[in-house]
Amino acid sequence: MRYAVLGTGIVGRTIAGKLAALGHEVAIGTRDVEVTLARTEPDAYGNPPIAQWLAQHTQVRLLSFADVATFGETVVNTTEGAASLQALEAAGRDNLAGKILIDIANPLDFSAGMPPSLNPVNTDSLGEQIQRTFPELKVVKTLNTMNAAIMVEPSRVTGEHNVFVSGNDTGAKKFVSELLTSFGWPEGSVIDLGDITTARGTEMLLPIWLRLWGALGHADFNFHIQGARTGA
Amino acid sequence: MRYAVLGTGIVGRTIAGKLAALGHEVAIGTRDVEVTLARTEPDAYGNPPIAQWLAQHTQVRLLSFADVATFGETVVNTTEGAASLQALEAAGRDNLAGKILIDIANPLDFSAGMPPSLNPVNTDSLGEQIQRTFPELKVVKTLNTMNAAIMVEPSRVTGEHNVFVSGNDTGAKKFVSELLTSFGWPEGSVIDLGDITTARGTEMLLPIWLRLWGALGHADFNFHIQGARTGA
Repeated sequence: MRYAVLGTGIVGRTIAGKLAALGHEVAIGTRDVEVTLARTEPDAYGNPPIAQWLAQHTQVRLLSFADVATFGETVVNTTEGAASLQALEAAGRDNLAGKILIDIANPLDFSAGMPPSLNPVNTDSLGEQIQRTFPELKVVKTLNTMNAAIMVEPSRVTGEHNVFVSGNDTGAKKFVSELLTSFGWPEGSVIDLGDITTARGTEMLLPIWLRLWGALGHADFNFHIQGARTGA
Repeated sequence: MRYAVLGTGIVGRTIAGKLAALGHEVAIGTRDVEVTLARTEPDAYGNPPIAQWLAQHTQVRLLSFADVATFGETVVNTTEGAASLQALEAAGRDNLAGKILIDIANPLDFSAGMPPSLNPVNTDSLGEQIQRTFPELKVVKTLNTMNAAIMVEPSRVTGEHNVFVSGNDTGAKKFVSELLTSFGWPEGSVIDLGDITTARGTEMLLPIWLRLWGALGHADFNFHIQGARTGA
């Protein structure tokens, strides 16, 4: 399977690296390839420049949003929430048509400082915005409720814990659930919440996630719905 | 200890019943005692009239908000979020002064139908509104992230799961944590998220809680933060 990963941050790199390790063809998309490759400083989160990462992952190519969307049979959105709709516009409606979009982005709003709030929130979500704006996509919201390292290596957190899926297309959710299994998510750990409006609930986990990160002093934790399985 | 429980719904009854069973003196507060006692129909959630419940719990009295606030050394808010500030006004600022308020309410907004949204949300919370409006109270937000039955009988859900506390007063949070222990919450299951602004995070768990309730078909589940304890 050919995967297009939109976004060059730590989530994009982590997902792209895992997909490549699993034998998929992977390309990462960015707004301007030249500008992105020319960066020599760590990003705002202290991650090394993407050029350095690409040099260590030579099987992953860096392409423009439009080229990567053409390349990918399945698309993964790991851009910042505030930039996601623009990135998808740049990817091109025709290039996205009919494809599954795995949406991992969260609509964090840093405009009023820390901790960030969410926008949209409560009566809307980024997942819904994307599905509404690009009805030709099959949007599945998932993996947006945990640290990037756990997304592709759930065993970093000992014991049972969960990943949620939200989306309108049953087949797309099945496809994504199987991909999650290939990432190491055990059978029964994937909870299908329902249609894409349920993305409100998972995006709204971010505020407590950020506070837990602060209270615990580490990010190697995840939500577990105790009692979700009969007898478990 | 004398406890005042504001609100006659299922959460108020459950908390009042547990406190009485633990040997505390308990009274439930309502806007108008005569009107409340005169109800003969089940409430909107199908719970029998409070008069029937009181007949089965003769050690619990029903008082006006003002009388119950005078009676209680510690106050528990289980009113509907949209009515909480009014209930506390009716309880009386002087009657509340210096007391711990255990806030279990959620600011659910049903004005646009189901599922409810939250108001306030995102950049504010009901817990903060109450603390801001009644600075003489020591507000501790807790127990608002689960079904009422689990609040006072956590063993209904098999395995480890968590309850959160948010508040500005360390002593008040310690008091509430000990009360939770007496309810059956094991050592280590109480997570102190920080000051009262962290109530945003727990109130914002409601949207996913409601969707999980729908997806699972039962309410005997709770959030567990896997990885919160070293080696656990």
